[in-house]
Amino acid sequence: MRVLVMLDGTVANPDLPHIRVDDLGLMRGDGVFETILVSNGHARELNLHLDRLIRSAAMLDLPEPDRAAWERCVQTVIDNWSSAVEFAIKIVYTRGVEGTGIPTGFGLGFEIPEATLRNRERGVSAITLNRGITTDLRQRAPWLLLGAKSLSYAINMAAVRHAAANGADEVIFLAEDGSVLEGPTSTVVIAEGRTLRTPPATIGILPGTTQAALFRAAEREGWSVKVEPLTVEDLRAADGVWLCSSIRAVTQVHTLDGEALPNAERAVELHGELTRLYAGEYA
Amino acid sequence: MRVLVMLDGTVANPDLPHIRVDDLGLMRGDGVFETILVSNGHARELNLHLDRLIRSAAMLDLPEPDRAAWERCVQTVIDNWSSAVEFAIKIVYTRGVEGTGIPTGFGLGFEIPEATLRNRERGVSAITLNRGITTDLRQRAPWLLLGAKSLSYAINMAAVRHAAANGADEVIFLAEDGSVLEGPTSTVVIAEGRTLRTPPATIGILPGTTQAALFRAAEREGWSVKVEPLTVEDLRAADGVWLCSSIRAVTQVHTLDGEALPNAERAVELHGELTRLYAGEYA
Repeated sequence: MRVLVMLDGTVANPDLPHIRVDDLGLMRGDGVFETILVSNGHARELNLHLDRLIRSAAMLDLPEPDRAAWERCVQTVIDNWSSAVEFAIKIVYTRGVEGTGIPTGFGLGFEIPEATLRNRERGVSAITLNRGITTDLRQRAPWLLLGAKSLSYAINMAAVRHAAANGADEVIFLAEDGSVLEGPTSTVVIAEGRTLRTPPATIGILPGTTQAALFRAAEREGWSVKVEPLTVEDLRAADGVWLCSSIRAVTQVHTLDGEALPNAERAVELHGELTRLYAGEYA
Repeated sequence: MRVLVMLDGTVANPDLPHIRVDDLGLMRGDGVFETILVSNGHARELNLHLDRLIRSAAMLDLPEPDRAAWERCVQTVIDNWSSAVEFAIKIVYTRGVEGTGIPTGFGLGFEIPEATLRNRERGVSAITLNRGITTDLRQRAPWLLLGAKSLSYAINMAAVRHAAANGADEVIFLAEDGSVLEGPTSTVVIAEGRTLRTPPATIGILPGTTQAALFRAAEREGWSVKVEPLTVEDLRAADGVWLCSSIRAVTQVHTLDGEALPNAERAVELHGELTRLYAGEYA
């Protein structure tokens, strides 16, 4: 099942074409997006997603997204969804047809892929891949749009294919100095005892919405949370490693670059706890 | 005037939607493109463009483009064009709708923008911007798709907006070590006496089709041509600097980072010669 709602509120048939060939979203990957998890009719972390959409749009000099219109669009997708307890909505906002200055926007509700749901249960193998950037590049070169969730994701998709060709499920990008960045479409989180850690957005990555919800819930239950740089050695030494995203929720990494991570028993135990924390954290 | 022809040969109305919202070209910037100059009914450097499209597609693991189908598509655009002596065709080839394995392809004929034609005559100002990569990154990290002409051009467009905000017409990207790379949608060429130079594709840039035609013509008329690394100092010391692309043809750079390039008189003289060489080089 899929539900398509245009930004103006029109419910449309997703099997028909709605985009012109000269839309800059298509021609130039010139636009931004978010993927939102809907659980029991509730769009999770909607405020964080819309905050991030608005920040990404500002980085691309797009017209400021109309927050109320996006809230209505998301709610209309939810109102028209009639099947599973859990699904996702991708919202897309492009520069529109060249020369018009009128952005294109829509929300597309879709089922969470079977493979993603399976990985949530079983965990995943990941490989590290060089993202070719330094951790100060975001500050030095804002035109490179590091930290904007743009539609220009060809590299992210190529990295995932590279992982699959090497028998792995997921990718963790590293900076040139070996710092841990993020997955192509996920945030890296590790546990060290009762502390959760994730790298800071300032090094050129996206602040995670699922990670933020998890940290909020964990903090309330007495965990420490730290947003600071991580190395591959930190991943190997951790009590557990996870990739967080709207559709993955909190997915455990059991194997890194072909080697099983140590502390497997402890990690599985923590996984149960983090999954419960995230599932209970509605905002 | 615009003419749209789908890859299957259908002539379509470009003012109507033809692309689904879940086309991966839109959702992920996951596809490749070329822009081809048509002069007097002849698609210039069509073989080089299709060679590059096929190479780009291979780098993105797209199904191999059907060369004959693309040749027919381009010819159908030309057959349906009835106005200016010169125009351009953008050909776009995406991964298509997720899960179908069926690529989307079309050619869109469009008029060359007035501003571009004016810049061909008057020359342009350019600023240098860091592209944040090292010149060996293409070899080290093929998943970063350096040298593929993908639809994920949000960075290229952001760089052009950054130039405009700083009062410049164009951008010349530099590597982290200061090596000259390319423009966001053009190739850098300089003249030193009777030698033309351009940087090699191996450092992570696109091999230029207009530059190739220019070099071929120049060589035949006794120029030397060199494909080797360039520095910003080389640009400043040159007898002339140009940005080459299908729509720009051979456009002169008169100002770099706010300073007029020296050798202006010599540069203008050479500009006339290079423009004539390129105009006469049909292949």
